[in-house]
Amino acid sequence: MGRTLTYPKRDANTVNRYKHRATYDLGAIHSIINSSQVLHVSFSPGPPDPFPAILPMIGTMGSFDYPSAGLDEPLDCYLHGYVSSRIMNLARKAEGDGLPVCIAASRVDGLILSLTPNSHSYNYRSAILHGYARPVTDEAEKLWAMKLITNSVLPDRWDHTRVPPDNAEMSSTVILKVKVVDGSGKIRDGGVSDERKDKNNNDVTNRVWTGVVPVHELFGDPVPSPENKVSGVPEYITSFIADMNKHNRDYAVTAVNVGLPVEEQY
Amino acid sequence: MGRTLTYPKRDANTVNRYKHRATYDLGAIHSIINSSQVLHVSFSPGPPDPFPAILPMIGTMGSFDYPSAGLDEPLDCYLHGYVSSRIMNLARKAEGDGLPVCIAASRVDGLILSLTPNSHSYNYRSAILHGYARPVTDEAEKLWAMKLITNSVLPDRWDHTRVPPDNAEMSSTVILKVKVVDGSGKIRDGGVSDERKDKNNNDVTNRVWTGVVPVHELFGDPVPSPENKVSGVPEYITSFIADMNKHNRDYAVTAVNVGLPVEEQY
Repeated sequence: MGRTLTYPKRDANTVNRYKHRATYDLGAIHSIINSSQVLHVSFSPGPPDPFPAILPMIGTMGSFDYPSAGLDEPLDCYLHGYVSSRIMNLARKAEGDGLPVCIAASRVDGLILSLTPNSHSYNYRSAILHGYARPVTDEAEKLWAMKLITNSVLPDRWDHTRVPPDNAEMSSTVILKVKVVDGSGKIRDGGVSDERKDKNNNDVTNRVWTGVVPVHELFGDPVPSPENKVSGVPEYITSFIADMNKHNRDYAVTAVNVGLPVEEQY
Repeated sequence: MGRTLTYPKRDANTVNRYKHRATYDLGAIHSIINSSQVLHVSFSPGPPDPFPAILPMIGTMGSFDYPSAGLDEPLDCYLHGYVSSRIMNLARKAEGDGLPVCIAASRVDGLILSLTPNSHSYNYRSAILHGYARPVTDEAEKLWAMKLITNSVLPDRWDHTRVPPDNAEMSSTVILKVKVVDGSGKIRDGGVSDERKDKNNNDVTNRVWTGVVPVHELFGDPVPSPENKVSGVPEYITSFIADMNKHNRDYAVTAVNVGLPVEEQY
């Protein structure tokens, strides 16, 4: 335990609504980013295009200089992409510290069904990071990041595939490294929350069902490809699926009870 | 059937990578947006802040002028937010057509585990919209959109809650209406795809398990709140959960087989 590192609060990342749900802890924010299968990365293409752009990308937090760093320590965000994509071209040409990006990850853990539409909500975890993106040019760092990203989708998968990538594969892949400037997270858990005036209105409470519907991601049974020659699904895959399904389900169900006195947990 | 409406291809929304997976059909794009529980909305706060911002928001496609319009017809995107949030202030003050935003929705339908890290992928559906956001000022349209958004989370929920919203609820809620300028979608389905050189390498194929792990969202058993007085979970909730779970699971499993000859479907 000891110290808890937090991101500095700037205008850009300070949460103003439902402040009690906000977190600036590196550990909490990085773990939301890492538990998301897809990250949404936004950047500004610039004039004449008035619109920001969003790309769904695969990525993960890591430190090449200190590979053993924990999730609660300063980390970079590594994103995987294709060499000629627009974000890569912009990041390559960007002046100064790199291309300014915003990285977002969100997941829904439950539907909060309360007495009024206004008090409806989700249980959720969301996080954003702001930072400057640059393509990784060091070959060793690039290979290290490619392995990190592959294993972030399925632990140990890298060593169970045909590696290392050949020259064509290395040159068609670009890894963006995002130097993180700030970040914030928001977590909503618990049950229904209604106003007294509605809770005291029998006409309403006798008619409106209130509660939580837990929501989580489920990995189904692996389907071998017609060309697969390995008999049986390897243990590192089956155990990942079993662990994730249990973890995701437990999180969604446990989140419902947060904040309730023990005797009222349901 | 008849005509299929498509968004115009501009620089900002034209897909350059894996073009065969791209779609510009309004129906396909709007249905990806509407099937997402969370939309990621980006906007540029502007100087001195160099970073674009991303907000997770709840929203849905709709047409106030033609409420019976189908998903494959021109629609606006309605987003739900809090009155004093930054995006609402920017949208209120925006000149011209409104605040330029990008709206993104993505979902993962399966992990594609192939012979090399480079050929790994997801089955997924993603969509983006570009448009101009303005707060809805017409009270009738605002109330209509609030009902539409609530029912997009859980069909029929609006009429099963305490409605209409009171004055305080109406004024604390802002609905953003996004006039869509263009959009695009990307859909990846099917199985593993590897290069011949790896498929012909017995050392690799004898060692590497290949296949697809379907992924989908699962709604769990509803948990009544300690204060709930309605006995039993209402049918409109249980049937929604059953339908969605079946639909989501079927999509993820069926996606694996897309493109396979019937005799090879697995």
